[in-house]
Amino acid sequence: MAKIKSQTLKGFRDFLPEEMALRQKVISLCREVFESFGFEPLETPTLEYAETLLGKYGKEADRLVYLFRDRGGRQVGLRYDLTVPTARVMAQYKNIPLPFKRYQMQLAYRAEKPQKGRYREFWQCDIDTIGISSPLADAEIISLIYALFKKLRFKKFVTKINSRQVLFSLMEKASLPKEKILTTLQSIDKLEKQGQAAVEQELKRKGLKPETISQIFKELPKLKPNQELEEIFGYLKGYGIPQDFCQFEPTLVRGLDYYTGAIYETVVTKPKIGSLTGGGRWDNLIGQFTGKSIPATGTTIGLERIIDVIRELKLWPDLSPTPTRVLVTVFSSRYLENSIEMVGRLREKGIPAELFLEPETRLDKQLKYADKKGIPYAVIIGPDEVKAKLAGLKNLKTGKQESLSPEKVIQKINPN
Amino acid sequence: MAKIKSQTLKGFRDFLPEEMALRQKVISLCREVFESFGFEPLETPTLEYAETLLGKYGKEADRLVYLFRDRGGRQVGLRYDLTVPTARVMAQYKNIPLPFKRYQMQLAYRAEKPQKGRYREFWQCDIDTIGISSPLADAEIISLIYALFKKLRFKKFVTKINSRQVLFSLMEKASLPKEKILTTLQSIDKLEKQGQAAVEQELKRKGLKPETISQIFKELPKLKPNQELEEIFGYLKGYGIPQDFCQFEPTLVRGLDYYTGAIYETVVTKPKIGSLTGGGRWDNLIGQFTGKSIPATGTTIGLERIIDVIRELKLWPDLSPTPTRVLVTVFSSRYLENSIEMVGRLREKGIPAELFLEPETRLDKQLKYADKKGIPYAVIIGPDEVKAKLAGLKNLKTGKQESLSPEKVIQKINPN
Repeated sequence: MAKIKSQTLKGFRDFLPEEMALRQKVISLCREVFESFGFEPLETPTLEYAETLLGKYGKEADRLVYLFRDRGGRQVGLRYDLTVPTARVMAQYKNIPLPFKRYQMQLAYRAEKPQKGRYREFWQCDIDTIGISSPLADAEIISLIYALFKKLRFKKFVTKINSRQVLFSLMEKASLPKEKILTTLQSIDKLEKQGQAAVEQELKRKGLKPETISQIFKELPKLKPNQELEEIFGYLKGYGIPQDFCQFEPTLVRGLDYYTGAIYETVVTKPKIGSLTGGGRWDNLIGQFTGKSIPATGTTIGLERIIDVIRELKLWPDLSPTPTRVLVTVFSSRYLENSIEMVGRLREKGIPAELFLEPETRLDKQLKYADKKGIPYAVIIGPDEVKAKLAGLKNLKTGKQESLSPEKVIQKINPN
Repeated sequence: MAKIKSQTLKGFRDFLPEEMALRQKVISLCREVFESFGFEPLETPTLEYAETLLGKYGKEADRLVYLFRDRGGRQVGLRYDLTVPTARVMAQYKNIPLPFKRYQMQLAYRAEKPQKGRYREFWQCDIDTIGISSPLADAEIISLIYALFKKLRFKKFVTKINSRQVLFSLMEKASLPKEKILTTLQSIDKLEKQGQAAVEQELKRKGLKPETISQIFKELPKLKPNQELEEIFGYLKGYGIPQDFCQFEPTLVRGLDYYTGAIYETVVTKPKIGSLTGGGRWDNLIGQFTGKSIPATGTTIGLERIIDVIRELKLWPDLSPTPTRVLVTVFSSRYLENSIEMVGRLREKGIPAELFLEPETRLDKQLKYADKKGIPYAVIIGPDEVKAKLAGLKNLKTGKQESLSPEKVIQKINPN
């Protein structure tokens, strides 16, 4: 047989155990926080009818959807995001009780040029509250972000908040024609990245009058929160969120066309990286799909970027590279049954325990293996221990070894 | 905008929160048991080079691989199982320390005709110990299956055990030509489903002599465990696995060609369903990919079938359809801040708590919503409660309501 091609596709990744450790930790903390806020899990298929996916994200994005004909000749595509599948779900199952607060953590696929922090297959994570128009729902999403980032051990982060309505009223005041509003917002969205001069140039090219442009830039920083935002900030105070963490930001625009009200994104100053969450109110999107308008608000949590930041700032220095807590070594075949008994006791207590499966291997080689894998403890049961009905417990970080009763070993490894 | 097509592809499924509840429970229990046995997580991409996938599963199976050309013209395919990607990983990352005990729980894709229990997208779950030739590794896999099924609340199940070596020696004794051995085993594998007469017919068609066939059927039930199996049964005793749960079964064959030693599968008598696990030793497969032979043994856990059995036998009657434990109702806008404070306290304790986000909704409608979603408790804070610094806790199953301090409410909802 020919050798298998041992290569992953560009932009696709294997996750070996050590990388899985952090990934699983982040995903399980997200799940915990989402559920504590009353959000429920939803999963949708990897493949959808192409028709379901296309024409929703814009022309640019449509070119990035993985499309193909399946064996039955159907034109299908890989999931591009989680919002469109959720909109389909809302249209397909009419009896979902509202409000529907769902979280969804699944992979998404984009045929983009891979680059630092951009993959062709990546974790996407969305929470949305569907069926509520009250700003209470927006405030809850923002307070969830706060709780989540705290739990993830982020120390400094800010959720910037604005409203499309605030921006729309500025555009109206500047007498901008209706059809220029969204494209103007898309340009202003680049302010932080490209600077004011570049954005002014772009707006000129888009046909805005110089006096309109200068009016926009004069008024923009002076914008004030509207009533919707005042309500949100009021609720956030009620939720006990410190003011430093949620700030009105008049220049915040967000890129997507479908936002209708509050918009919000979370950023960190260190390291340099794009926004870690991005969301807002999207009251009209589901209506476009179902014919019946349903208000909605929610956010994407940028799992891949969050993982990058956690790694870069070393926020989880104590995270073990392996779930395994202890290697039960085998002194020799003669004492194998003692080691089997011990590993059984540990597992019964739910302690991740590996038994060394080659009984005739030298003990120092067994300990080296445990150390290489980052397993923190080793148990040694030889003739002396068997006689004394004890077990040797070696802390592989400190090198310290002590003889303990099996109960004490369990207690030492898993103090909870 | 045209209405979105609200339809899933045949053989693909949405999982709404209620279905997710059982699915997540099973997956998290699997993870817990796998890790308690010292297995580590691995994940591989959804897409692989077609070349990696094809020619590994057999001609029949190759036709079921989802294949297409990506936007860069590469011939790619969707993951068909977890074994071939793992073999690729072993070839690609030479510095993975051995033994490598990995578990992998990911979706797999097969362009099969959808039917009861067969989907085009389904959860696959594998555990394998790579790098150990000792039967100790096989025994550990079997003892893990026992621990897992117990944890899943299965009462009756049996893991049948045999060895390819036992079968090979029978074939040799019957003087079967070497090239007929695997095809004969594939026929015998159908014994339970099709009966002896049909299998005899098939073997005749495959060119076996009548006397060879009758010798095989005469000897088959009389086969005895070989030394490898004796060792495995010995270790299983050491692991404390009751004999009823792991039995030598001379007619067990398993379908795949690549098994080289011990083979095992787990079955239940009720309901009628295929095997729930299936695995064995596959010492030569990785060698075919890497050029260097590495022994391996492991099993597939049939997650989808296990979920079907749990549902059919109602093994988890107490499983909540939603993670949410309590709805904090809002008496009126005036008492909203009290409800916000209460929901914050609950969430801080990690109790999944939903706040009713439409403050002006009638209380009975709020309670009805909670009941419809299967949320077990509701908290009510009105003028009386605020005055007395208490909260009303309503058990939505019994209808019983009591006024308690916030601390008592937390204790009552989450007694741990």
